[in-house]
Amino acid sequence: MLAGERDARSARTLGRLLTALEESPIGAGASILTTISRGLRAHVIALTGAPGVGKSTLTAALVKEVRARGRSVGVLAVDPSSPRTGGALLGDRVRMSGFELDRDVFIRSMSSRGALGGLSAATPSAVRALDAAGFETVIIETVGVGQSEVDVCAIADSTVLVAAPGMGDDVQASKAGIVELVDIFAVNKADQPGAVAARRHLRLASADRDVRAGQWRPPVLLTCGATGEGVGPLLDSLEAHQVYLRTSGELDQRRAERFEREMELFAHGMVRAKLQAWREDGRLTGAVRDIAQGSLDPAAAALLLMQG
Amino acid sequence: MLAGERDARSARTLGRLLTALEESPIGAGASILTTISRGLRAHVIALTGAPGVGKSTLTAALVKEVRARGRSVGVLAVDPSSPRTGGALLGDRVRMSGFELDRDVFIRSMSSRGALGGLSAATPSAVRALDAAGFETVIIETVGVGQSEVDVCAIADSTVLVAAPGMGDDVQASKAGIVELVDIFAVNKADQPGAVAARRHLRLASADRDVRAGQWRPPVLLTCGATGEGVGPLLDSLEAHQVYLRTSGELDQRRAERFEREMELFAHGMVRAKLQAWREDGRLTGAVRDIAQGSLDPAAAALLLMQG
Repeated sequence: MLAGERDARSARTLGRLLTALEESPIGAGASILTTISRGLRAHVIALTGAPGVGKSTLTAALVKEVRARGRSVGVLAVDPSSPRTGGALLGDRVRMSGFELDRDVFIRSMSSRGALGGLSAATPSAVRALDAAGFETVIIETVGVGQSEVDVCAIADSTVLVAAPGMGDDVQASKAGIVELVDIFAVNKADQPGAVAARRHLRLASADRDVRAGQWRPPVLLTCGATGEGVGPLLDSLEAHQVYLRTSGELDQRRAERFEREMELFAHGMVRAKLQAWREDGRLTGAVRDIAQGSLDPAAAALLLMQG
Repeated sequence: MLAGERDARSARTLGRLLTALEESPIGAGASILTTISRGLRAHVIALTGAPGVGKSTLTAALVKEVRARGRSVGVLAVDPSSPRTGGALLGDRVRMSGFELDRDVFIRSMSSRGALGGLSAATPSAVRALDAAGFETVIIETVGVGQSEVDVCAIADSTVLVAAPGMGDDVQASKAGIVELVDIFAVNKADQPGAVAARRHLRLASADRDVRAGQWRPPVLLTCGATGEGVGPLLDSLEAHQVYLRTSGELDQRRAERFEREMELFAHGMVRAKLQAWREDGRLTGAVRDIAQGSLDPAAAALLLMQG
């Protein structure tokens, strides 16, 4: 499906598929995906950073810029730290953002249900679903520092770390080991005092990275989501990074690593799902009793679980 | 097998079983265990604490005290932070400790190979193997603060946190959330200045715990592994805790939780083992290529992995 071909019906279908993926990231949704997926063609972008740096506003401005360049865009808002929002907040956001009539924009919140290491289990599949539906750009917006951020960055082609003046995000980022994974730094709210100082800090932090000749050197950009200033250059930089990934062969390598990791996360998720099923039908209680009595060993019980 | 019945041959057999468990925590070793295991009867004690507090010396003194009371004892020394030692260092320790001719003492280092969340995958099985071999007391000695300590405590009936004067272990312990899991605090090197202050700190830290009437209240003891001072009272306290666990019903509850957790850890370990097998025989490369080309989805690949 090409941009512009989408209609209200396909948006509803996509919405239902994403709900199915959230309900059962491993089961039904996955088999549908195998049918529709034709290899990942979209440019997958992660926007990450501490709460309050203006990620949502910057995402909206970026969506506007992508649309101005004639491309379709899907947004997944992942907040592993908060419980399921049910999409109501996102619904408000879609209305506020002015994209509600644009079929080439799809915005969706992802619950943290079935979280795999901080990342919603359904997120990698949701990226594939948006890709299969023909979206040329997929933006994953995430909140939270630490492992959840690292996990989200791991499923993106290009990672943007969003910081804001005077929030000490540079320090937080380097602490969490995020700096190593960042492809573009954006100092947002660049109209506020301290933006230039924040840019200097981030330049110093990223200068520690060992970048070889010919490798991508992460730029530090000033942006303002509210006014749209600097958002064009941010998208320019993202496009340049995509070209770099393709020509250097790094895209295939990154994606191969990602698919391997996704597969591993799904397998561990399946173990948890099996254990939950055992818990619900009483088999777990029985197994624990047998282990206590010595007629079963935990490893043998695990083997039964895997086979069941 | 009762204490005293052990001979050199059975010690060698046990050593070989533990090696088999380390080589393949999930495979061969586990099936042997199911055959010999008859329910856990030993008192399983964890000794944990930061490096330098004298855990090894205190363990040796505790082993001596257990033997003086006519019971057999197996020791597993787990250091998840260090690579496999091959047992050479432990061999030295056994020689130094003076137990080399005592068949009712078995000392073994556990490698961190196949680590499950910081804990050697083979450790829970090794505890069961020592129990099946008739050891009445099993001591797990571990180094390292954080998750690895929590994991080791989770497989013990009684957990002793070892601290030393002026090392700030009280603070470290409360930071890592270990205090909640500790049954007995031991301020070791009690002959050094600051021992009484350290005891006061630990008493304050543990006083924050919400202990209901009739529940075990963790004592804070002064010990000196080098001179043996306070080691008798430490073992008294451990025996009192074992009686408490049995009479309160907490032992069954703790062990049920532990067996469930062990089972889960083994299942996740099996996933990793399957993935490693796929990596070695090239199936992983094939699956990743199929995913990249869109003929396979990561979730479907995970399902194949689980079934294979």
